[in-house]
Amino acid sequence: MDNVIEPANGVLGKEITCTAAVAWGPGQPFSIQQIRVQPPQKLEVRIKILYTSVCHTDLSAWQGQNESQRVYPRIFGHEASGVVECIGEGVQDMKEGDHVLTIFNGECRRCAYCKSESTNLCEKFRVDPSRSVMRNDEKTRFSTQDGKPIYHFLNTSTFSEYTVMDSACVVKINPKAPLDKMTLLSCCLSTGFGAVTNTANVQHGSTVAVFGLGAVGLAVIQGAKTIGASKIIGVDINADKHIKGQTMGMTHFINPRDLKMSAHEKIREMTEGGVDFSFECVGNLDVLREAFLSTHDGWGLTIVLGIHLTPRMLPLHPMELFDGRRITGSVFGGFKGKSQLPLFADQCMHQDGIKLEEFITHELPFNNIDQAFQLLVLGKSIRCLLHL
Amino acid sequence: MDNVIEPANGVLGKEITCTAAVAWGPGQPFSIQQIRVQPPQKLEVRIKILYTSVCHTDLSAWQGQNESQRVYPRIFGHEASGVVECIGEGVQDMKEGDHVLTIFNGECRRCAYCKSESTNLCEKFRVDPSRSVMRNDEKTRFSTQDGKPIYHFLNTSTFSEYTVMDSACVVKINPKAPLDKMTLLSCCLSTGFGAVTNTANVQHGSTVAVFGLGAVGLAVIQGAKTIGASKIIGVDINADKHIKGQTMGMTHFINPRDLKMSAHEKIREMTEGGVDFSFECVGNLDVLREAFLSTHDGWGLTIVLGIHLTPRMLPLHPMELFDGRRITGSVFGGFKGKSQLPLFADQCMHQDGIKLEEFITHELPFNNIDQAFQLLVLGKSIRCLLHL
Repeated sequence: MDNVIEPANGVLGKEITCTAAVAWGPGQPFSIQQIRVQPPQKLEVRIKILYTSVCHTDLSAWQGQNESQRVYPRIFGHEASGVVECIGEGVQDMKEGDHVLTIFNGECRRCAYCKSESTNLCEKFRVDPSRSVMRNDEKTRFSTQDGKPIYHFLNTSTFSEYTVMDSACVVKINPKAPLDKMTLLSCCLSTGFGAVTNTANVQHGSTVAVFGLGAVGLAVIQGAKTIGASKIIGVDINADKHIKGQTMGMTHFINPRDLKMSAHEKIREMTEGGVDFSFECVGNLDVLREAFLSTHDGWGLTIVLGIHLTPRMLPLHPMELFDGRRITGSVFGGFKGKSQLPLFADQCMHQDGIKLEEFITHELPFNNIDQAFQLLVLGKSIRCLLHL
Repeated sequence: MDNVIEPANGVLGKEITCTAAVAWGPGQPFSIQQIRVQPPQKLEVRIKILYTSVCHTDLSAWQGQNESQRVYPRIFGHEASGVVECIGEGVQDMKEGDHVLTIFNGECRRCAYCKSESTNLCEKFRVDPSRSVMRNDEKTRFSTQDGKPIYHFLNTSTFSEYTVMDSACVVKINPKAPLDKMTLLSCCLSTGFGAVTNTANVQHGSTVAVFGLGAVGLAVIQGAKTIGASKIIGVDINADKHIKGQTMGMTHFINPRDLKMSAHEKIREMTEGGVDFSFECVGNLDVLREAFLSTHDGWGLTIVLGIHLTPRMLPLHPMELFDGRRITGSVFGGFKGKSQLPLFADQCMHQDGIKLEEFITHELPFNNIDQAFQLLVLGKSIRCLLHL
């Protein structure tokens, strides 16, 4: 299957075959099978994935929760690290062997959005769950052994020994950084930590409430702890999250099921009227409303991080905006991935208190991917790292 | 009826009688009648109203649109200017004869909110349509000739020759400022202009869309013009607003009824993807959604200024927040009234381009208040100034 492609096509390198976990339908067990991976085209990069983990976004996509986004066969996975195997025409910032992270929210550095300081949403390579082909030619780089296309996911598709991505979605990091732990920066850690430092701009002494203590919520706690928030209140209906939250820097824990009042009433009671910042990391609108009301009127800010698959609209009345509470979304923690993640990786290597190892509760061989999904479904794992 | 009250009660001055326009029920013609006005209590001020105008908030309250806020008899009115007639115990920043504006969103300068730079919502004296009595003793300062209480409105109640207000809601301004025109700073001009300069922080060269060209919308245009916005797009279904908008500084006008596409699609077409800032000055949720979608993804900000009496929730999906559009409310243009309005009054006196006179389309004697309401109902007036 190793066909040499003419450079005249703007393509360097050869097609390869490798093992991938292919999803053939919603919720079906993954098929661990040989696939064909084309070489990278112009400004694309082919990466040998070394570590990938499983996130709730993979889970809900695999389950096909959003009907309009059901496309099969498909390779999921977006939180990963690896090394550059080969580069396409025009790629100048990476070369074979570089250590890289995959990012689902890319940065082309050329569009009006990338040139603006106000957003980290690239015109072409921002996160887009409905996209399943490459930008260059609207085609896939994956196929079955007999040539049937296999679709891409979130600009990344990391449940494969090799993947092809646009270089806008590949971040080169310090080769001394431990790639296993750095995998977390590819999604959950950056999303939560950056929501605190970039989107919310939490200050030393601020008060913070975090709704949902999965990987993103725990990363929010890590960010708030690093900045020196005075109170970090974790909220979760899973009592097991208490200890993990404390390890990360949480100062108080609320289990709404144990309360005789609503979570926002309790939080207002604990903080003289409400927290300065709340973070919704669940993807549930009732939780979102609690998060909104838990902030202080006049200046409270709620950051939405959860993925809301419901057709329901925001459960907020327009007049409630006049109480001075604000709400905003945050994508990938507000990080411009290519520009800022290498520095963040260095910070994570050297700063005390950022506990990457605490996020990785399980490690398994890639072939056990179904087991990794089950651990997440059951709420047993924060992150299960798959070794390729 | 002039009873001297003992200072030992903490009250200085005498009860007086005067003429007021009293509302006895929803939508009923005003009763121009003699009422009794008590002297101001501690930290209160009694004001001789010289000019007052009629705003949509008076209109909807008079119509009793919000059932829970129906309290009668009541004296409406909140946009006004006048002179201090007498002061209550402890008032130090004003004296008899001072020229003042009434503000419905007060500033006590002592509470945690007033001391915060992040909000202009005072703990006690923020705008509160459900409040109908004074804070000091939870009673009214107005009564009928035979002693029946007449209720307050929005901390102000300016449809009366004399009113009693907490000093937190009274702003002393330059005695050289023309009180008739300065009346506008009491509500509409500050609300619209300040939403641009304080809440949105519009920058020179920004693009702006204004939905609803009533007094507040026109004040938004004036603010955007003063700052040097590059495009100021007015949106109204009343074609008559076109000329007035242009006079104020609007650069483009859209009448949604003349379009074959939605207003937001048209605005995106006119601005390479959307305006930087949109202002909703109507109080209609469908308009609010258009305003939201008319901003540029990645960094657009919608400021809600309209009063939404509907029970409907915000027509925005939580995932739409991930497109980087933001939405926030603005109360009284973000101005801390006592601290900032005196300077704003000076700015309005001296800065070219702020066209106060253009807002006052009609002037009538106070007794013709019913006519002033009709002008607003019919969309004939921007502001009708009543002379007392």
